[in-house]
This record gives sequence, structure tokens and C-alpha cells, in this order.
Amino acid sequence: MSERTKFVLDEKDIPTTWYNLAADVAVPPHLHPGTGQPITVDDLLPIMPRALAEQELGLEREVPIPDRVRELYALWRPSPLHRARGLERVLDTPARIYYKYEGVSPVGSHKPNTAIAQAYYNKEAGAERLATETGAGQWGSSLSFAGALFGLDVQVYMVKVSFHQKPYRKLLMETYGARCVASPSDETAAGRRILAADPECSGSLGIATSEALEVAMGDPRTNYAGGSVLNHVLLHQSVIGQETIAQLALADDYPDVVVACAGGGSNLGGLAFPFLGKALAGGPKVRVVAAEPAACPTLTQGRLAFDFGDTAGLTPLLRMHTLGHSYVPPSFHAGGLRYHGMAPLVSAALTEGLIEAVALEQTRCFAAGVTFARAEGVVPAPESTHAIEATIREALRCKAEGRAETIVFGLSGFGHFDLSAYEAYLTGSLRDEPYDQAGVEAALAGLPETVDA
Amino acid sequence: MSERTKFVLDEKDIPTTWYNLAADVAVPPHLHPGTGQPITVDDLLPIMPRALAEQELGLEREVPIPDRVRELYALWRPSPLHRARGLERVLDTPARIYYKYEGVSPVGSHKPNTAIAQAYYNKEAGAERLATETGAGQWGSSLSFAGALFGLDVQVYMVKVSFHQKPYRKLLMETYGARCVASPSDETAAGRRILAADPECSGSLGIATSEALEVAMGDPRTNYAGGSVLNHVLLHQSVIGQETIAQLALADDYPDVVVACAGGGSNLGGLAFPFLGKALAGGPKVRVVAAEPAACPTLTQGRLAFDFGDTAGLTPLLRMHTLGHSYVPPSFHAGGLRYHGMAPLVSAALTEGLIEAVALEQTRCFAAGVTFARAEGVVPAPESTHAIEATIREALRCKAEGRAETIVFGLSGFGHFDLSAYEAYLTGSLRDEPYDQAGVEAALAGLPETVDA
Repeated sequence: MSERTKFVLDEKDIPTTWYNLAADVAVPPHLHPGTGQPITVDDLLPIMPRALAEQELGLEREVPIPDRVRELYALWRPSPLHRARGLERVLDTPARIYYKYEGVSPVGSHKPNTAIAQAYYNKEAGAERLATETGAGQWGSSLSFAGALFGLDVQVYMVKVSFHQKPYRKLLMETYGARCVASPSDETAAGRRILAADPECSGSLGIATSEALEVAMGDPRTNYAGGSVLNHVLLHQSVIGQETIAQLALADDYPDVVVACAGGGSNLGGLAFPFLGKALAGGPKVRVVAAEPAACPTLTQGRLAFDFGDTAGLTPLLRMHTLGHSYVPPSFHAGGLRYHGMAPLVSAALTEGLIEAVALEQTRCFAAGVTFARAEGVVPAPESTHAIEATIREALRCKAEGRAETIVFGLSGFGHFDLSAYEAYLTGSLRDEPYDQAGVEAALAGLPETVDA
Repeated sequence: MSERTKFVLDEKDIPTTWYNLAADVAVPPHLHPGTGQPITVDDLLPIMPRALAEQELGLEREVPIPDRVRELYALWRPSPLHRARGLERVLDTPARIYYKYEGVSPVGSHKPNTAIAQAYYNKEAGAERLATETGAGQWGSSLSFAGALFGLDVQVYMVKVSFHQKPYRKLLMETYGARCVASPSDETAAGRRILAADPECSGSLGIATSEALEVAMGDPRTNYAGGSVLNHVLLHQSVIGQETIAQLALADDYPDVVVACAGGGSNLGGLAFPFLGKALAGGPKVRVVAAEPAACPTLTQGRLAFDFGDTAGLTPLLRMHTLGHSYVPPSFHAGGLRYHGMAPLVSAALTEGLIEAVALEQTRCFAAGVTFARAEGVVPAPESTHAIEATIREALRCKAEGRAETIVFGLSGFGHFDLSAYEAYLTGSLRDEPYDQAGVEAALAGLPETVDA
């Protein structure tokens, strides 16, 4: 075991390939909602370039990372792996805790790992504009950043509740030259339909996704770029876990438990899948814990079914744990986790017993975030506090059991744009939002009919 | 010359000593305002621990960095050195541009380099609380972060104009458990006196410093902690330049020009002094360019004189370039540069011809900041945009002259808490503030009488 507290890699150690869990775990194909048949690459070309469509449906284990993408990754990658000695001391745990810190990216989260890749392939294919949704704004900022680097216009539909909670996120996108509007907006038919039914609608990732898809489908120069859920997004995020494995080797250590927050699943998949890949290839087993919000408990309360990724039903049908595509989660602060569904790859991993899930209340998560900030320095994003709270529970279990396990968690981003949420927590005005069970039941009753409906 | 774009060092490469320019350049001693005699270590003990007082007056070239400080530096150090290939492309310059990025610290600037050290020595000496001033909030956040790590209470007086411009900075300090109030406040005699004369006073670093000093002097459990100007602060910041030298060796390169923004001088001194030390020891010469705001042009328009570091006249007299300690600069956005004086070490370096200075308008600096953000990804702090604008001018000079010089600049922090200033720039409402020449003349007429008055 190493006495060191930080494990850094060199630019040349940025992975040269992405790892694809779909090569090792059977994942049901996305279905065409009209025909019920598996979608094809051609089906996806109206909204994404061929290279990304092929990655979305691909089954190769290793996908080469273009040189230009690796060059831009070097703006912040490899990201550091820290031993959380301060947190260990506070918890007085025998566990060794590490965190992989993705907040060193220019926008402060892991999202640029796929934003850079998607902007690259879109630029190569001649696209001029990208449309997308964003929750807390991490993804919208990331795509805006990537668009600036590649000279692509970016149009972001930001979930209205987050748009108002986090005004600096919009300013950050605009500084990169992008355009950001609150969703639901009156710019799309999907947005107008929802506003007509509920003018006060606080929005959701599903609604914002419908708006972005509608724009991309209606303009041949515009493509859609997704920040999570899709197979190619999780593929790109696999650099996180691959680097972590190399860094733990420097520490002469290997995890018993890998913890990450889970909203759409890209951060969890990015960190954990390379570990699962090693285990499936005969390497050491790890427990993987997905920490999701109790207010939007997709993995722990959702149904495994084919469902749409967006509210209006414009996406292919994805086989995933879902609360129903028409479900609008309550307005809690971890906007990036406020999504009705889950990445099909993560859902498949849960089904196969490769991962576990835990649902956490936001007040407990913010308490964990403050503990972490005061022990380790970084104020975490509200999403990331879910991973911290789950890690603390594991570390306290280790203490109770007297076991010196190794826990690695993903610190997916910083909370610099989320400080009003911390203020609410610190002043005692933050409340836990129960999930709307009746709303979920109604949404699940409206699931599309498919082979397994 | 290397093809690489990032130069990283390992935890073990964190410097083991701080470099002290006072060993190599004659710096007039601070004077006791009552006696006109050089101050002693004992004179400083009411506001700081002996170790820091000895560093303030010390002339040793190398000062050992305590192990615990190096251990906490590893939370973010060594910071990366980047080759700014994107910016080079945009400028189409033959110059090689590098930036040392201090924004990877948990609070987003170089300030924790001294905050950690000061908190360490204060904790060792038994202090229970630290009082300080802050402009844009980078320093106050940093001391709050360091206080949390060491279990010290922190009380921050934040310049009122910045307090209102950057509300998230206060929330960040509170998340670390610190207390932050707008200055001038009614909590101190100095603050009450100024509010009585001008209830609308927007504050200044000089005023906030007076408030913090008054609190520290009035409570034996409380010490003062300064974020810039003082010799020991610049000493601690020398880790920046030392790391940069090691990283440039990895790049097989060495600068012709080193550029940094200058407010109180800690970022400039931290980056540039180790290069000056090498040159003074017979190594290669470098040009050092201090980029200061045209609205507060201390180095280019100030007078070299003994003056107080604060408005109320509580500090020792410092031999420095000053606009007069009673001068209140106009309210521009780079709050960290909004200070009437300059570090005595930086002033001595200017006097000795070791550095140059240039004064820059804020609209040009924000334009440079946006160019940088879209080319390199990081949205810089308003302070740091001054270094970028000065760098761009040097790079364009290289282009005009056809010279492939090497330029290294300090990217002292990110602008995540300053996005409302970017909004003002992007929407065209940002104006350049001329400095108040009559106000400076009046303030200079009120300089304290000393040997050289």
C-alpha cells in the first residue's frame, strides 16, 4: 500500500481506446417505435453522424480514440486520483477511500469526455450545429465548450427549474458562444404542447430532450448530442475507469467497492464498467454501488421495460429501468440525476447482478458534501454528493465490521454553480422530496406497447 | 522542443523549500509607524505567529516547507503547465505560449498556496481564529478552506462591491464554515468611521484590511492572515514558479517572457521570482511583465514611498509603489487587483529593473478572456485576463517581428464566480473605468512622513 495521497498520470497515459461493456454483457437492442424492430445505423443518421451511430450499436470491446480527441482530452486529462485521507480521518474508518476527480475539466465535470468526442465526429461529418438538453447545466456547458473548440454552434434546452436555480451555468454557456433557453420553451412544438397543458411546468430532462431532438430532426445542418444514457456516451466515459485502474496500480491497490452517482448513468458507467470488464475477463471481482436520488429512484423503484428516452416519444425505445417517460420528477437540487430512465447498459448490468443500487435523500447527501468539503477541500456537485454519502455508508460499515476495504468513488464534478443549494442546506431550508408514487404509476401505465409490454 | 501539450509532475515533485527573493534583492525593511525604525519580529507577534513573523523579515534564500503543508498542497499541487496550442493557432503566432494553471485548487486560484501555510503555522502556535480581508473572494475562500482543514475559525471582511457582485463567493466561504461580512461593516471602529463619512462606500482592500487587523489586534486568540503584499505571502507562492521551471525542463524549453497579473503582487511574485532568482544566480535572463489594471495602476502611475498597507493606517509602513492608502479605486471587476499598493518585493524588483509593468483596460482584458475560453476551455478569472491580454500583445509582437519566443503566463484562477462580469462584457454594458487622478494626488499628499517623505 502506498503512502502517497495523489496518483497522477502523464498526457501519454490517456487511454488510446474506449471500453465497450456491450461486448461483454448482452444488452437488448434499441427498437424502432414504429416497427418494433431493432434500429439500424441508418435510422440514427438524421440526428447523429455515422461514426456515433455505429458506436451506439457497436459490439467491439475496444474502440480507438482519435488523436485529435486525445489531444483535447489533455486540456484536463488524465484527471487525478486522490486518496481521501482527510475524509478517512473524519470517519475514523479502517477503509481506504479514493476519489477520481473529474472536476478539473474546464467546466467542472466528467461531461466533456463525451462532448469533445461528439463534437469531433460531428465536425468531421460536416454538421454545423448541435442541439441538446441539460439538467443542472454540466452537460450543456460541456457541449458549449466542445462546440467552441470545434467551431460548432450549440443550442441548449435547459430544464427550467435548474435554469433558474443556476443562472451562472447559462452565462458560462454564453461565454463559450452557445445559446441556452429554459425548457419547456415556446421554440418547439413539444415545448408549446407542454406549456399549454401546464404553463408552470418546471421541466425535466425528458422534456428538454424532446425539444432538442425536434430541432435536430427539423434541420439537416443540426444534429442532436446526448449527454448521458446512450451507449456511445457511456463508451466515451470509459476513460474515467481506465485511468483509475492505472492509478490504483500506482497505489498498489484495487477496490473492493466502486461507488458512483447515477442519473442517466454516464458517470457510473464511465467509472465502473472498466472494472466490470476486468472482472468479466477473469480479473478480481468488485462490488459496484449506484447511488441515485430518493426523489427519482429509477434503479430501485423503476420498471425494466422498453421506454422512450424523452417525454414526447421521439427517441428509439430503450430497454431500461424507467419511471415512465411522462413522469416529471420533483424539483430537487441534483438536476443531473433528475431523469426518468437509465442507460440501457447500466440497466443490463443491474439485471445481470453486476451492480447494486441505493436511493438516498438529498439532505443526507448535502451533509455528506459539507463533510467532504471541510475534510478534502472540494465542494462537490449535488450529484456527486450522492456518491459521497454512499461511500460514507460503506466506510462506516467497514468500521463496524473492522474491515480495511478499498473504496473508490467518482467525484464527478464540483459544486461551484450549486452554492445556492448549499445555502439552503446550511440554513435549514432544504427539504427531502419524496418521489411521486402515484405519478410514477400513471406514467408506467402509459408505457409504449412492445414485445415485452 | 516537445510536441506535448501538458506537463505534469508527481506529488513527490512538490517543492521542498520556498524561494525568498529578499535573499537576492535589497528590499527596504518595513518601518514601525511610531518610531520610524525597522520593525522586529516581536512587533508582529500581536497579529501573527513567530514563524510567519520570522519569514516576513527573513533573508534566507530557501525556507523548508513543512511536511504537513506539502501533504495538503497535494490536494491540488503540482498544478499543471499547459502549452496553449489553441491560443497559438487563433493568434497565428510563432511564439510558444504556456500557462501555469492554478485554478485546479479546490477554490480555483493560487491563493491556497499561502492560506495552507498560514493556517498551519497559526494552528501550531495555538491561534483559534483568523481574520482577513478579501477582494474578489479568492483569498477569503482560500483561507476558509484552509481554516476548515485545520479546525480554525475564519472571519472574512469582503470588499462591498465584490460582496454584491459575487454572491457565490460568500456561500463558498460559509460552506467551509467561515463567516463573511461586507466591508466597510459596522463591526469595527474603522468600518464605522468610513460608513459615517460615506454610507455608500463601495469598500476597498485597504478598508477591509483595516477591519481585519483591528479584530486581530483586539483579540489574543485571533491572528491576522494576509492574502498578498507581505513578504511571507510571496515566499509561499514561490511554489508556482519553481514547479513551472521543472515543467518547462520537461518541455525542453525556457521562457523569454514571463507574464502575470499584479494586484498586491503575490501571483506575480510566486510565478516570476524563481525565474529572477535563477537569473540573479547567473542563469538565463527573462523579461517579466506585470499586467495591472488601468483603473488601479499602482506600478505604472504610483509613487515609490513608505505607505500603509491599509486605509486606517494599522500596518507597518511598507516601501512600495502606492496610489496612497486613502485612495479608493473605482469599482471594476478584477477585485483582486483593486489595491492601492504593491508588494514591497515586487516594487523592489521594478526599481531594480528586473520587471516591467503595463496597465490594461478591462474591456480589452475580458475580450482576451473570451478568446482564451473559446480556444483553451478555461474561463479565466477577471484578474487572470490581464495576464492573457498582456500575453496576447507579446505574442502578436512576436508575430510582427517573426520571432519564435517562449512566453509563460500565470493563469491564476478560473472565473466561475465572475460570470456576471462576463455577461456585462458580452452584452456590451461593460465600461472602462479611468483611474481617479485627482483622488490619487490627494491620497499621495496624505502619505505618512518618513525618512524619504
